[in-house]
Amino acid sequence: VLAGRTLLQQALPVTFGLKAAGWLTGVERAEARLGELAGALPAQLGGAAGTLASLRGPAAAGASGEGEPAGPAVLAAFADELGLAEPVLPWHTLRTPVAELGAALGVAAGALGKIVQDLVLLAQTEVAEIVPSGEGPGWGGSSTMPHKRNPVAAVLALAAARRTPGLVSTLLTSMVSEHERAAGAWHAEWETLRELLGLVGGAAAAAGDALDGLAVDGDRAASNLDATGGLLLAENVTTALVPALGRLAAHDLVTEACRRAVAEARPLRAVLLDEPAVTEHLSPSQVDDALDPARALGAAGVFVDRVLAARGGASGLTKGRG
Amino acid sequence: VLAGRTLLQQALPVTFGLKAAGWLTGVERAEARLGELAGALPAQLGGAAGTLASLRGPAAAGASGEGEPAGPAVLAAFADELGLAEPVLPWHTLRTPVAELGAALGVAAGALGKIVQDLVLLAQTEVAEIVPSGEGPGWGGSSTMPHKRNPVAAVLALAAARRTPGLVSTLLTSMVSEHERAAGAWHAEWETLRELLGLVGGAAAAAGDALDGLAVDGDRAASNLDATGGLLLAENVTTALVPALGRLAAHDLVTEACRRAVAEARPLRAVLLDEPAVTEHLSPSQVDDALDPARALGAAGVFVDRVLAARGGASGLTKGRG
Amino acid sequence: VLAGRTLLQQALPVTFGLKAAGWLTGVERAEARLGELAGALPAQLGGAAGTLASLRGPAAAGASGEGEPAGPAVLAAFADELGLAEPVLPWHTLRTPVAELGAALGVAAGALGKIVQDLVLLAQTEVAEIVPSGEGPGWGGSSTMPHKRNPVAAVLALAAARRTPGLVSTLLTSMVSEHERAAGAWHAEWETLRELLGLVGGAAAAAGDALDGLAVDGDRAASNLDATGGLLLAENVTTALVPALGRLAAHDLVTEACRRAVAEARPLRAVLLDEPAVTEHLSPSQVDDALDPARALGAAGVFVDRVLAARGGASGLTKGRG
Amino acid sequence: VLAGRTLLQQALPVTFGLKAAGWLTGVERAEARLGELAGALPAQLGGAAGTLASLRGPAAAGASGEGEPAGPAVLAAFADELGLAEPVLPWHTLRTPVAELGAALGVAAGALGKIVQDLVLLAQTEVAEIVPSGEGPGWGGSSTMPHKRNPVAAVLALAAARRTPGLVSTLLTSMVSEHERAAGAWHAEWETLRELLGLVGGAAAAAGDALDGLAVDGDRAASNLDATGGLLLAENVTTALVPALGRLAAHDLVTEACRRAVAEARPLRAVLLDEPAVTEHLSPSQVDDALDPARALGAAGVFVDRVLAARGGASGLTKGRG
Repeated sequence: VLAGRTLLQQALPVTFGLKAAGWLTGVERAEARLGELAGALPAQLGGAAGTLASLRGPAAAGASGEGEPAGPAVLAAFADELGLAEPVLPWHTLRTPVAELGAALGVAAGALGKIVQDLVLLAQTEVAEIVPSGEGPGWGGSSTMPHKRNPVAAVLALAAARRTPGLVSTLLTSMVSEHERAAGAWHAEWETLRELLGLVGGAAAAAGDALDGLAVDGDRAASNLDATGGLLLAENVTTALVPALGRLAAHDLVTEACRRAVAEARPLRAVLLDEPAVTEHLSPSQVDDALDPARALGAAGVFVDRVLAARGGASGLTKGRG
Repeated sequence: VLAGRTLLQQALPVTFGLKAAGWLTGVERAEARLGELAGALPAQLGGAAGTLASLRGPAAAGASGEGEPAGPAVLAAFADELGLAEPVLPWHTLRTPVAELGAALGVAAGALGKIVQDLVLLAQTEVAEIVPSGEGPGWGGSSTMPHKRNPVAAVLALAAARRTPGLVSTLLTSMVSEHERAAGAWHAEWETLRELLGLVGGAAAAAGDALDGLAVDGDRAASNLDATGGLLLAENVTTALVPALGRLAAHDLVTEACRRAVAEARPLRAVLLDEPAVTEHLSPSQVDDALDPARALGAAGVFVDRVLAARGGASGLTKGRG
Repeated sequence: VLAGRTLLQQALPVTFGLKAAGWLTGVERAEARLGELAGALPAQLGGAAGTLASLRGPAAAGASGEGEPAGPAVLAAFADELGLAEPVLPWHTLRTPVAELGAALGVAAGALGKIVQDLVLLAQTEVAEIVPSGEGPGWGGSSTMPHKRNPVAAVLALAAARRTPGLVSTLLTSMVSEHERAAGAWHAEWETLRELLGLVGGAAAAAGDALDGLAVDGDRAASNLDATGGLLLAENVTTALVPALGRLAAHDLVTEACRRAVAEARPLRAVLLDEPAVTEHLSPSQVDDALDPARALGAAGVFVDRVLAARGGASGLTKGRG
Repeated sequence: VLAGRTLLQQALPVTFGLKAAGWLTGVERAEARLGELAGALPAQLGGAAGTLASLRGPAAAGASGEGEPAGPAVLAAFADELGLAEPVLPWHTLRTPVAELGAALGVAAGALGKIVQDLVLLAQTEVAEIVPSGEGPGWGGSSTMPHKRNPVAAVLALAAARRTPGLVSTLLTSMVSEHERAAGAWHAEWETLRELLGLVGGAAAAAGDALDGLAVDGDRAASNLDATGGLLLAENVTTALVPALGRLAAHDLVTEACRRAVAEARPLRAVLLDEPAVTEHLSPSQVDDALDPARALGAAGVFVDRVLAARGGASGLTKGRG
């Protein structure tokens, strides 16, 4: 059980498993898409204007002049030699394959960036819900600040995720190219694509390093969940009181108890157990149950199971297709 | 037969059919990808932290407390009601579906932009290889400049193609979001995605308008191809002379003829027919054949046929998958 | 005194004043740059090709034909009427003024985004070093989660800061325009610039709302600074021991003390005071001084004074020019 | 006199001088801005959290403990040593200086890109209004296509101009950084800024190469201006007829003449001189004058003079400040 957070403030609890399952869906989807594109990457060979006009077979015996166009056959052999797919036509200024690859790399970087963003936030001194092992290349120490576990690999992956969107935009811009060979657009792709490949490959490795050997500090997570003195789960008390009091009265009663808990800096549980209108209907153990984060996980476990079951399917994002 | 151009200068000839076939591959691929994503767009419903913890069934008869988590069942019904796919888990901060959709819209805008970029260049006063019909909304006239056919729809589509890459980069940046509800990333998506949808839809409509009622001016294309006095196809003369002279001598002979054609501002054909070393081996009609753009189209027709044959397949980009 | 953080982990202490002074430099610089550009924004009027050829004065009395070119005079009057600067020449496809304005808006959004990013992090449940007043539009409450102070205005400003970079890139891309009137580039600017103006104006207002009525919780900051049990300032103890022990021995002694403090989960102060090699040279109050965050603020106060002194100068970023 | 073009179609004539004067304003402005920023680039030194807390002077004689904070003095000396400006405060996570530099590089790339975009379009086979010298590195030849003058340097500069906007967006995104040392944002700047510097420096050199040794082909420009058979300047004939016929009748008369010129593929001059309603009021030489591009240049010369006069001023963009 880990604090779930909305807008970086604690909300309802989630499990670390649910968080990690979500990360997994993004990475697997990115991997599937990249694999799909890589497996169909077409070779490009077209000559000066995409007709392969200079490639001709030998003249037939006894005939003068030249033979039949040999472009398609050469193109097929060329693609085969490179282990690439054979394109339907030369695509020197039809850059969909490069743009799609770049876009998929951008999505992959985002999915990796999401993971390490969460790790960096969880590793904050004041949160500390994850514990880097201290071994491996993912987390650095500091001799002058021995408490620090610098998220060096996560930071690398975050930097990569910040650099990719601009590079993807360059590849998309380069799709608008002139005639049969562009004046600048094509040339803008070269280093950009190379950087994207390097950054996303590096981000994947770094995210792996950041995750490797990481432990979740359940005690710290529990203690963080306690930071609000039970206010997090106040709504559960309301729900428990509804059968007896009706929704409106239950809501008002609990809201007032929350107000007093904050004003008096006391745990919500103590305030509730001092309140006859509550104790008339709920026993202390029922109050404890209502305020127990472990009982407020909803369908977290179900969703984790669904993610694991969907692995290896065509798409990890939707249930029907998993 | 239309002038093929590399870096905006005439190179070997291509057909308008090859150009249009290439445009078609980009648009069909974009359409297929968008259809694939739209058909699997998952619904999103997760509650405060993605567990749907507040959704519970009624308590069993005779039992106290609440019933089983009802989140997954509600989520399935919710997705069904909206006609969207059921996600494996709530994805409030796992933005792959939105990022993939945005990226596909960016690729679509690029494929459309390529088409209208070519149209605008072909419609230049000095090129004029396409002839707008003057009817329909795609091309505007001017009462003060009656010769102009302003490419108004093409310009709209080009503007859209210029705006999409930056918007896609915003969506990719927004994938790096915090915990269970992001502080800003998610909110940056709303208008951005709406604009992308509007721009790409608008660009598709505008590109259609720009293409609608367009005719190719074959005479003008032929006359443009003649602008270099045959230099464009000089290499074909070399090829024709190789059997008699060998590659090096043939190349030197033709290069010298080209140099003189430029220096004397004469057609290459005339220079060649004045040259005994050429006429010894090639008749005037063989020279004409070598310099005939219509005989220098290589595999253009084959490639067009392949594109048409691949239509409706899973992917128009590669041959094996078409 | 507030925890200074590197890579989101506690490092040496800083004051809230230093943090806010830094924010101020970014905002003031952005304001100065925007004011500079807005004050020199040139009018644009050029006719079909930038020559204002259709504007001519009346023919001289008795003369036939037309008079002198009146373009420059009309342009001057036009700029005056609009309250804009008079350009040296029509700039329909010379988009530096728009690109510079867009870039300055992007820098402003970044400076604002830095402020609210820090606020959002400081407002985390587990950090809580700032206390929203609960009044005003900047921070939202939640009836079901009464402990939450949602940073609604900060989130708006962060969303704006995330959207601006892509929009600025569109304006920069639009500088590469064709001849005397671009086919698409110019048209891509319109909505993009309008959005930038709206987003940055909105971000400034929202950042103001987020800051308005905010208090710093000094007790919480102090307690956060205590979270590492003194490890944060271990280096200060080393420094205090150097005169007696030499640098190397002092370093080793303190490092070992830190290691034990972590292993035994005790405050560093207690471990140090148990160590004769320390107490031989430092009194308990000297150890307290060394570990006191308020004595470890370096030049924070000096820098704050410098920022305040530089206000209203030509540039708040550098000292010599302030 | 060169064809002015709107949306890539011929409009009213401009001079090459006006075109080049416009290019000059963009480059000079970019140079001035880059010089301004480079001259005020602040050094950065701040220690772990921006306080320079570890820098202290020696203790006063006879006193125990340490001396006064030495951070500001060290920072001043450090900046001086590097030849950089002294910042008002350490700015590790206040990235305005880097973002402003990046933005200025982006604007510079756009101003350079505009130049080479025009060059590439003017060098098209069908336009050919500029004549590369064939010497120097800016324009490449082709042995197989001897007519081609490939704009190799212009293409390099265009590629750079296409790559810069996305890189600038990365720097702007990186302004939103966390606390006193960012987790990823800062790290995303390093290579990005280095690339921007390289690309813009390279683009400036390449644009210089593209311009070097370039000649304008006035005959070709004149012949291109003739391509529409005088339609370009039809409005001037209308203006000349207004005193005699009134605006509406003059407009209708000329519009009809234009229609007939297009339909019959005759020069407008010939059609006009066949028309008694025209010849009654205008002599052949008056018609020639009205259709003469050299008389339709408006204030082109005035604007060129203004640009040249503004050189070396604080800003070449506006008149008052030049």
